[in-house]
Amino acid sequence: MKKIDEQKKKSSLWFKSLRNQICEELEKIEGIHSSTPSRFQRTSWQRDKDGSRKLGGGEMSLIRGKVFEKAGVNISTVFGELSDSMLGKIPGTQNSKNFWASGISVVIHPFSPKIPTIHMNTRFIVTEKSWFGGGADITPTNKKSEKSKKIAKLFHKNLKKICDKYDPGAYDKYKKWCDEYFYLPHRREARGLGGIFYDYLNSDNWNEDFLFTKNVGETFLQTYKKIVDDTISDQWDADDKKMQYHRRSRYVEFNLLHDRGTKFGLQTDGNIEAIFMSLPPFASW
Amino acid sequence: MKKIDEQKKKSSLWFKSLRNQICEELEKIEGIHSSTPSRFQRTSWQRDKDGSRKLGGGEMSLIRGKVFEKAGVNISTVFGELSDSMLGKIPGTQNSKNFWASGISVVIHPFSPKIPTIHMNTRFIVTEKSWFGGGADITPTNKKSEKSKKIAKLFHKNLKKICDKYDPGAYDKYKKWCDEYFYLPHRREARGLGGIFYDYLNSDNWNEDFLFTKNVGETFLQTYKKIVDDTISDQWDADDKKMQYHRRSRYVEFNLLHDRGTKFGLQTDGNIEAIFMSLPPFASW
Repeated sequence: MKKIDEQKKKSSLWFKSLRNQICEELEKIEGIHSSTPSRFQRTSWQRDKDGSRKLGGGEMSLIRGKVFEKAGVNISTVFGELSDSMLGKIPGTQNSKNFWASGISVVIHPFSPKIPTIHMNTRFIVTEKSWFGGGADITPTNKKSEKSKKIAKLFHKNLKKICDKYDPGAYDKYKKWCDEYFYLPHRREARGLGGIFYDYLNSDNWNEDFLFTKNVGETFLQTYKKIVDDTISDQWDADDKKMQYHRRSRYVEFNLLHDRGTKFGLQTDGNIEAIFMSLPPFASW
Repeated sequence: MKKIDEQKKKSSLWFKSLRNQICEELEKIEGIHSSTPSRFQRTSWQRDKDGSRKLGGGEMSLIRGKVFEKAGVNISTVFGELSDSMLGKIPGTQNSKNFWASGISVVIHPFSPKIPTIHMNTRFIVTEKSWFGGGADITPTNKKSEKSKKIAKLFHKNLKKICDKYDPGAYDKYKKWCDEYFYLPHRREARGLGGIFYDYLNSDNWNEDFLFTKNVGETFLQTYKKIVDDTISDQWDADDKKMQYHRRSRYVEFNLLHDRGTKFGLQTDGNIEAIFMSLPPFASW
């Protein structure tokens, strides 16, 4: 097997395995807090075939639960030719339209306004070049409360650990990238309390880059479990709920106006339900 | 006074007068159905000054009532220089960056899922050319019910009347334009049940074009009053409400992903609260 094909196989298998872990862990939490726990519903989708040639597809997993009002975990592996408007904008597409992309994307909107919304996404992309990208960021309802700051501190601390293991300069760089990326220029405000974001990661040591990407997924999951545990018993009132709906409206604005993942999905004719799974169960303006 | 300056004055005064009529009529309806009726809250905003040069501004009127859960009526008159990225994309901007734009924009999200959401917007724009644009479209919660179809029929009939008065071919053309404009390609569905949409209207008879634009505003208001009257007593249940939240989510998607008004507002550094006033009070995904 060619090295790049092995890398494609390893990475896509990992995204699937991580998806299974995430769904299992979230279902466990639902099980503890509900006598009739919701389960993830899984739907697969295929990209339209180009003649007899397959173009890949994905699997959406969606839960609407008591703790996790709406949580979506998508994996997909898509390939084929990029539309002309995208050529040159993505590395390694000057001479060839071919692309291959596999990844996982998770967005969790908890029911309680005291449990932060969270997002994690990692991917491996192959054109005439190849690279990893991804990140994780956290969005508490009340960005200014002491508790939210404490949670964000833990989240950042754990992300810093795996960044430091990968490359001593990585955390500062990826934290900054995250702050710049998850920013709503039209509101002049950050989406949440940050995290890390990276792209075009290719250090010439594929195994190291892959390990880092795996660590992002695992650290996200372990840290979020801890955060849910720390916040699930916190009392909240109608004002907190109102603030949560407000915070979520900004999430919608970011995802529809700015998110590159949304744009990439729409431009590569991805599955619309999967692309928009990140949108909150309720939001208000 | 130069002819164009007179036209600017007349059109912007009309938008203000129409704004007053709309607010008054909606407040009257609130007054009938509530013992402590909500009133429109008015906020003015100014575009940032370019040195000592004023760049215009606007007034937002927002009501959060019992009948009209959220209704916004914006007027604005803005001017100055277009950003480079917009030049050439707008008629009459090949040789000059100067623009002047005045208009009114109304979006009404009623509380009852039986009363349709409605939108109306008209404007007069001046670059090296000048033209009117605008339209009105209706979005019932349940697009397929007999009642919704009946309402849409009345709405279209009244719009057709004023189109026919302006130009016998206008209704078919503007209805089609509306269907094409208020369409969500990523969902492959229409936003609602249509209406009319027109742009670049300059027939060389400014008075006729202005009269048509005035008629759009007045017909919208009179017809919507009738529609509210016809639907306000209709019973609804939790399923209707759920469908309303769903319909509104598509409204958000359209406004953030596709609406040119939103884009124009963001690109000309318009007031963010005014631009996003069209977004529904609650939506769900």
